[in-house]
Amino acid sequence: MNSAAIDVVGIGNAIVDVIAHADESFLAKQGFAKGSMTLIDADRAESLYAAMGPAIESSGGSAGNTMAGLASLGGAGAYIGKVRDDLLGAVFRHDITAIGVSFDTPAATAGPATARCLILVTADGQRTMGTYLGACADLGPDDIDAELVAAAQITYLEGYLFDPPQAQAAFRRAAAIAHGAGRRVALSLSDPFCVARHRAAFRQLVAGDIDILFANEAEICSLYEIDDFAAAAAAVRGHVAVAALTRSAAGSVILADSLSYTVAAVPAPRVIDTTGAGDLYAAGFLFGLTRGLPLPTCGRIGSLCAAEIISHVGARPELGLKGLAKAAGLL
Amino acid sequence: MNSAAIDVVGIGNAIVDVIAHADESFLAKQGFAKGSMTLIDADRAESLYAAMGPAIESSGGSAGNTMAGLASLGGAGAYIGKVRDDLLGAVFRHDITAIGVSFDTPAATAGPATARCLILVTADGQRTMGTYLGACADLGPDDIDAELVAAAQITYLEGYLFDPPQAQAAFRRAAAIAHGAGRRVALSLSDPFCVARHRAAFRQLVAGDIDILFANEAEICSLYEIDDFAAAAAAVRGHVAVAALTRSAAGSVILADSLSYTVAAVPAPRVIDTTGAGDLYAAGFLFGLTRGLPLPTCGRIGSLCAAEIISHVGARPELGLKGLAKAAGLL
Repeated sequence: MNSAAIDVVGIGNAIVDVIAHADESFLAKQGFAKGSMTLIDADRAESLYAAMGPAIESSGGSAGNTMAGLASLGGAGAYIGKVRDDLLGAVFRHDITAIGVSFDTPAATAGPATARCLILVTADGQRTMGTYLGACADLGPDDIDAELVAAAQITYLEGYLFDPPQAQAAFRRAAAIAHGAGRRVALSLSDPFCVARHRAAFRQLVAGDIDILFANEAEICSLYEIDDFAAAAAAVRGHVAVAALTRSAAGSVILADSLSYTVAAVPAPRVIDTTGAGDLYAAGFLFGLTRGLPLPTCGRIGSLCAAEIISHVGARPELGLKGLAKAAGLL
Repeated sequence: MNSAAIDVVGIGNAIVDVIAHADESFLAKQGFAKGSMTLIDADRAESLYAAMGPAIESSGGSAGNTMAGLASLGGAGAYIGKVRDDLLGAVFRHDITAIGVSFDTPAATAGPATARCLILVTADGQRTMGTYLGACADLGPDDIDAELVAAAQITYLEGYLFDPPQAQAAFRRAAAIAHGAGRRVALSLSDPFCVARHRAAFRQLVAGDIDILFANEAEICSLYEIDDFAAAAAAVRGHVAVAALTRSAAGSVILADSLSYTVAAVPAPRVIDTTGAGDLYAAGFLFGLTRGLPLPTCGRIGSLCAAEIISHVGARPELGLKGLAKAAGLL
């Protein structure tokens, strides 16, 4: 792909999701807080997989989902992330390139296997995740394609990338390249516990390097250690040019300079699996930004994409999002 | 599992499904007739996978789906089939045992990889399949667990099993053991082209060894090379004790001795992917039989299970079928 034409480059943990239904007692038995993401090692991944129900496998990874959503809307996306040269790695690469996202990061030829995220979906559609990072630990600054990042309108970073040790350096290198080229940098906070694990680094990043911030209520509250959403939202103002704060069924609030916009959620026909809701909101929002659409429209496209993803199992779109957005009069 | 307690043992090709949306022009370009199953070799599987869209992976195999459905209804099922000791083989084994089906056939430690079925789902929900049989070719008579087959109320055979070379012998051995133990043998014809490939063998089997036959319109017509459904249905009468003939949205017709029962389809909330509809109809029907329910009730449970499976992507149940059947007043 001609990197000059890239709308967004996403950088994240390249993960295959393994998704099963589970009841709340299973979560309790496994020691998981519902809705959380827990990092697990290879042994734990094996024992958890053995204990969980029948599953489907679907490419995932937060930024990977976002790039798939962007491509489904008709945007030009690229992805940077690390898989191993194994079957799941081939699955990840197939799925993201098949939807039209450029993905040229070479696979690791040694070391841990391609990452997997064991996702337990409860009857309320909530997902609880155990992530084995595997090959993601090998992503480092050298994997950042400087030409690609400089060319992309927006560089999008998932917060989960703070977990593997070398990736923070990759993160910072990408942000520096993007800004050096006069481009914008977006960040998703990913998970309140991930924020708690790296709070100081995230605060520094948000204050210094981020133009566009995505966070849900729990994440923005965790970032500033404030219980009240309105107070946390006030705290982020001034640090970033745009903050898109999602509130599940209550929609989203978009902050820009001194302005606030409240965007309603798009009702999903049914809520089956909320995995990827935030990732797809970001996809729609970023797509709108790259097309120069007004911020409330960006939020509405995000809400529409989120509604599609929660109506089925899996975090990659099943339906063409461009068609949905056109039908809704948003494009 | 104590084989004395087995309701149904299913014997089939152990396959992982790789499911993607596709448009009709893609099918034409690949030379597939919509709705058909084409056997493909490893090279073709690779090139087709490279050309197809983003996919999800889900355990499949016709009899495997049926046994998963039976277990979801609360039945005691066992499965005989051949995987390789590779990642997809581990996925297949995990999924079928996690839903409560006993699966003890040892994995092949050499030879071709675990089978996969590349499934292309068009906007009308129809599925078109390219199957790479891989390790299934290694299933032979020695893999038939005689004690298990003798103990099961019903031995269920999928017609697709006639494709790999040694499996017909496994098939006949299983039928002989089951009948020797005073048990019943059921067969699904699987696919009209599969019937055409092995028509003489199927006719001989149906006339001599099968107690319960499952077929859709195209399959029963192909078996007798008759264009008219009513005439084909008349032709099968007398050959088997029970024939359950499915007609998609028109429901099913059950023939037993000189009687016929017409069972309405259960309307699906939405038709997303018809993969597994016949397999799940068989699951519900067989479960009803093992519980001694009247034939029309068996058909209604079958229709209910089929409606669940076509409302989402994938051929294994997402919702507990027992709960659905209870809610519908069928159990």
